[in-house]
Amino acid sequence: MANSKFEYVRHFELSNTTHLLPNTYIIIRIDGRSFHRFSTLHSFTKPNDPRALSLMNAAAVAVFHDLGGEVVSIAYGVSDEFSFVLRKECNLFDRREAKLVSTVVSIFTAYYVSLWPTYFPSDPLKRPLPTFDGRAVCYPTIQNVRDYLSWRQADCHINNLYNTTFWALIQQGGMTAQEAEKELMGTLSKDKNEILWSRFGVNYNNEEEMFRKGSVVYRNYGAVPESSVDDKAEEKEDGPGQISSATEASSQPAVSPAEAQKGKSRSQQKREAKKLAKAEVVIEHVDIIKDTFWDKRPWILHWTLGRQNEYAGTEQ
Amino acid sequence: MANSKFEYVRHFELSNTTHLLPNTYIIIRIDGRSFHRFSTLHSFTKPNDPRALSLMNAAAVAVFHDLGGEVVSIAYGVSDEFSFVLRKECNLFDRREAKLVSTVVSIFTAYYVSLWPTYFPSDPLKRPLPTFDGRAVCYPTIQNVRDYLSWRQADCHINNLYNTTFWALIQQGGMTAQEAEKELMGTLSKDKNEILWSRFGVNYNNEEEMFRKGSVVYRNYGAVPESSVDDKAEEKEDGPGQISSATEASSQPAVSPAEAQKGKSRSQQKREAKKLAKAEVVIEHVDIIKDTFWDKRPWILHWTLGRQNEYAGTEQ
Amino acid sequence: MANSKFEYVRHFELSNTTHLLPNTYIIIRIDGRSFHRFSTLHSFTKPNDPRALSLMNAAAVAVFHDLGGEVVSIAYGVSDEFSFVLRKECNLFDRREAKLVSTVVSIFTAYYVSLWPTYFPSDPLKRPLPTFDGRAVCYPTIQNVRDYLSWRQADCHINNLYNTTFWALIQQGGMTAQEAEKELMGTLSKDKNEILWSRFGVNYNNEEEMFRKGSVVYRNYGAVPESSVDDKAEEKEDGPGQISSATEASSQPAVSPAEAQKGKSRSQQKREAKKLAKAEVVIEHVDIIKDTFWDKRPWILHWTLGRQNEYAGTEQ
Amino acid sequence: MANSKFEYVRHFELSNTTHLLPNTYIIIRIDGRSFHRFSTLHSFTKPNDPRALSLMNAAAVAVFHDLGGEVVSIAYGVSDEFSFVLRKECNLFDRREAKLVSTVVSIFTAYYVSLWPTYFPSDPLKRPLPTFDGRAVCYPTIQNVRDYLSWRQADCHINNLYNTTFWALIQQGGMTAQEAEKELMGTLSKDKNEILWSRFGVNYNNEEEMFRKGSVVYRNYGAVPESSVDDKAEEKEDGPGQISSATEASSQPAVSPAEAQKGKSRSQQKREAKKLAKAEVVIEHVDIIKDTFWDKRPWILHWTLGRQNEYAGTEQ
Repeated sequence: MANSKFEYVRHFELSNTTHLLPNTYIIIRIDGRSFHRFSTLHSFTKPNDPRALSLMNAAAVAVFHDLGGEVVSIAYGVSDEFSFVLRKECNLFDRREAKLVSTVVSIFTAYYVSLWPTYFPSDPLKRPLPTFDGRAVCYPTIQNVRDYLSWRQADCHINNLYNTTFWALIQQGGMTAQEAEKELMGTLSKDKNEILWSRFGVNYNNEEEMFRKGSVVYRNYGAVPESSVDDKAEEKEDGPGQISSATEASSQPAVSPAEAQKGKSRSQQKREAKKLAKAEVVIEHVDIIKDTFWDKRPWILHWTLGRQNEYAGTEQ
Repeated sequence: MANSKFEYVRHFELSNTTHLLPNTYIIIRIDGRSFHRFSTLHSFTKPNDPRALSLMNAAAVAVFHDLGGEVVSIAYGVSDEFSFVLRKECNLFDRREAKLVSTVVSIFTAYYVSLWPTYFPSDPLKRPLPTFDGRAVCYPTIQNVRDYLSWRQADCHINNLYNTTFWALIQQGGMTAQEAEKELMGTLSKDKNEILWSRFGVNYNNEEEMFRKGSVVYRNYGAVPESSVDDKAEEKEDGPGQISSATEASSQPAVSPAEAQKGKSRSQQKREAKKLAKAEVVIEHVDIIKDTFWDKRPWILHWTLGRQNEYAGTEQ
Repeated sequence: MANSKFEYVRHFELSNTTHLLPNTYIIIRIDGRSFHRFSTLHSFTKPNDPRALSLMNAAAVAVFHDLGGEVVSIAYGVSDEFSFVLRKECNLFDRREAKLVSTVVSIFTAYYVSLWPTYFPSDPLKRPLPTFDGRAVCYPTIQNVRDYLSWRQADCHINNLYNTTFWALIQQGGMTAQEAEKELMGTLSKDKNEILWSRFGVNYNNEEEMFRKGSVVYRNYGAVPESSVDDKAEEKEDGPGQISSATEASSQPAVSPAEAQKGKSRSQQKREAKKLAKAEVVIEHVDIIKDTFWDKRPWILHWTLGRQNEYAGTEQ
Repeated sequence: MANSKFEYVRHFELSNTTHLLPNTYIIIRIDGRSFHRFSTLHSFTKPNDPRALSLMNAAAVAVFHDLGGEVVSIAYGVSDEFSFVLRKECNLFDRREAKLVSTVVSIFTAYYVSLWPTYFPSDPLKRPLPTFDGRAVCYPTIQNVRDYLSWRQADCHINNLYNTTFWALIQQGGMTAQEAEKELMGTLSKDKNEILWSRFGVNYNNEEEMFRKGSVVYRNYGAVPESSVDDKAEEKEDGPGQISSATEASSQPAVSPAEAQKGKSRSQQKREAKKLAKAEVVIEHVDIIKDTFWDKRPWILHWTLGRQNEYAGTEQ
């Protein structure tokens, strides 16, 4: 074949084919490229533009749908970034890193561009078009995944409190950006809360949940009885400017979600997997640092979805 | 800081941060995901849809523009794939693989979706939207890069000759897909040429260049005298179904392009780089297997663009 | 400095510095290079040479001592290979793969060569000297690690039963190697047991434990009451040619070792870690597929050694 | 098979199997572990112990012999480190990084330990035994390889001049280590030369070549006429404390070594490869920063050894 003398170049591919470690959670985080410039180009509302955030969320939901029911367990978005947590038994593309990352980025980009007119009907997209980069990182345990998500949500809180105060100083306080920056230098969370309240009558805790908590996207299996968990309590604990600790006691059931899952038969797991794959993808703006969210939704990180995890080993 | 107890998760990133080997050419190849289904969904003309190919080319040109003048040297596209050759001195994102691949894929996707109505004005995009995956591979020498591109163009030829004959058997010969497949089993290039000519009066060599050669995208510096190269000769040699050999003699100048480049002063190189960065990005459908194309355009692979290649070492 | 113009070459190192994923067990397996030839050169006894195996074990013990008490949890050796399981909180060399693998291989080689005269006093080492290669692989869970070790021990059994029968046919049965190979083709475990017993009066189950089970090396903390576990029962279950199943019920304590460990205070863990680091390294030839071995020695895989695992996240 | 349920663990290996980029030079550098302590344990002569350096060189020669004639082109050693340059067409172990690094380290260690009594006949090895770690890095061009080696040799010079002066201040000048360190703080090369000459009557340039230049190990093909190169001139240029520039003019032949090599027939290359594989491995203490060394020995980096480089592509 005429082509054969060139085909040796395929050998070079071997040296750049990373397979992500099996039996670990893959988190793919995407970030908007030069979104500071992009948000100016399209006059995004500061500090937060609900249209832009909703568009991010819609693109994230599209990733769930495009990849199918067994790939993404949960996603968390804030500002121009979104993190997608893939199930640890995910074997899509044989876990090849470049394929996984580029596919998620491409789906997200395609829907962001395509859905733009829905969220910005009177503002056609200008060039350079919005684009995203991405990367994948593996996390071996549920605790690591939860700490990753807690890190992002704590970051959301810290940045949003800063930005809310910064823009209040400018928009309502008449400061320049330099003056506002100087004013906030060295302040703590309580100082910023105080500035907002005393100068502008703003109770930070009444700001929109989407701005303060970011966006949590997942399939709402909805089969877990909610009676034992007190949502109100969750809300009350979360005072202004306070990131609640992950170590505080939560009312653990006598049997852990993982253990409950283990006791299930394969066919029971398969039924659940099917139901879960069809479950509605929902967007919520809630605390995911504390245990409450997770205890109520054990399918997100604990369920193995019926399909055997071929890398998990023999069940004991 | 409240966030600090979670930040340890950043350490996990270290284990998945591939930096591509410096002083090598990076080739990023993107491929349409499930484009067989997508082309059916939008009723692409078979075997080739000029609108779809032109849209691919337009998206590739956008990658050149978005990344700026010093990143991509040349790109080659065929069907639903495109390969981007990055300069070997490219240091974008510190050569981090995931960032490079995801960025190229994201730009390509954004423009493909955004430009769709220009090429398919009466056919709005349907879901699932068109998306692409990508990967990066390093090649250490110009010869490796040329062999890579020759491999893709030879593949283009082989596939297009097959597809052209296959669809002629169906569209003009009235065969089913199964019958056409069986008819072509085991045939050589000359057999397919013969089928096209004797049964359908088609001279494969008269098919559109874009279908037979694919699309070559590069910045047209246009400063190299063309007098010594005979384009006509190039065309004539390229008989039907024949992939011309890369080993045949080409009229080499006494001084190689690389040597000519080496003799240049730094400031001369800088002037050239500036001019090149502004040069028009062109799309051509020409042979890139033989030397002629490259001898005429030494800036594509030989020039180092004024900016010192910090990884090339001391010049001898 | 005269050297500065060359130092750019250090940038190339970045592209080949793999950091192994934190919070996973690293298993480094080393293999003798061309040990078939080497065993012939030094006339090793077939099918097993106790001197050669004891030398392997001594070199493995040296790896424990050289790397210190907190690095290796357990090692398993068979024939000319040895697998070292590193603690999942191990951060030696920042978990750089090449450093970890090359260090373990170098220590093992140094002691193998140096201790040779102790085990082969009348047979000086000939050239080429014995050498080893190695590799590292990460495993995220205890189950994965146990399955890895079970895989190696099951392999040991399969190979040793084959080799024992093969060499009996040659040494006692007078066959050539080709004849013995042909005789064994397609035979099952019970067939080989039958050949050994009926033709040579050999009860495979009475063969040396070191040959049948391989060698297990670990620090014998010795603080766990052994009363609840029946060693004799363990031995009895292990009939000839039978690899016992990992799924059979074992008498689980009401509190799992991991849970017991979790309840400990940091200072208690530190005391234990110190004691463990000083504990004697022992070599045993026992079943590590069943749960019994592990239930009796929870410190091997379950204990986190007082020193906080900085990658494990907040404890729940 | 009883083993099959555990074999899934092999899938984890895929994620840690790095193949080094083809058609690049692989440099494996090994370093003594804790050799400061080891050199004290065995009372090495300061600043340089000729026995220890000769033992390093002997171990390096063993690596050449053990790996065979077509793997290592050249090695460079200084102090307790040695760098091995593998041919760019090397395909040993499919260029798997861990196998390559661990094998070189293991051979080096085995011979270092085994040859110890030859170089230290009255000083038996003490524990902990001497061991080495290693790593591999790829370099795409001859220039990169030469710059790497120049970096190491320039480092050798800088360190040795420092150490020579430091130990003269202590051994002959009666200073403590702290006093000597303070005395040398901020000094330039010429200052150290001056201290050596004016206080101790030492002309640094008369120090042993092995100490000042390190050790260069390669196969001495010896087929290149030496008449055109002036060894004496090379020595003369190299004044005290002066690292000669790599940019100074060297008498280039009209045809470059690479071009001369290219013109050779395959059978001629094969003859040369055979002869080279059998050529004596020599140890020299010479300048490898300037061109002279390389111009005289084109087979080291320029020859492709008859065996086709399957990754080099079609020859033009």
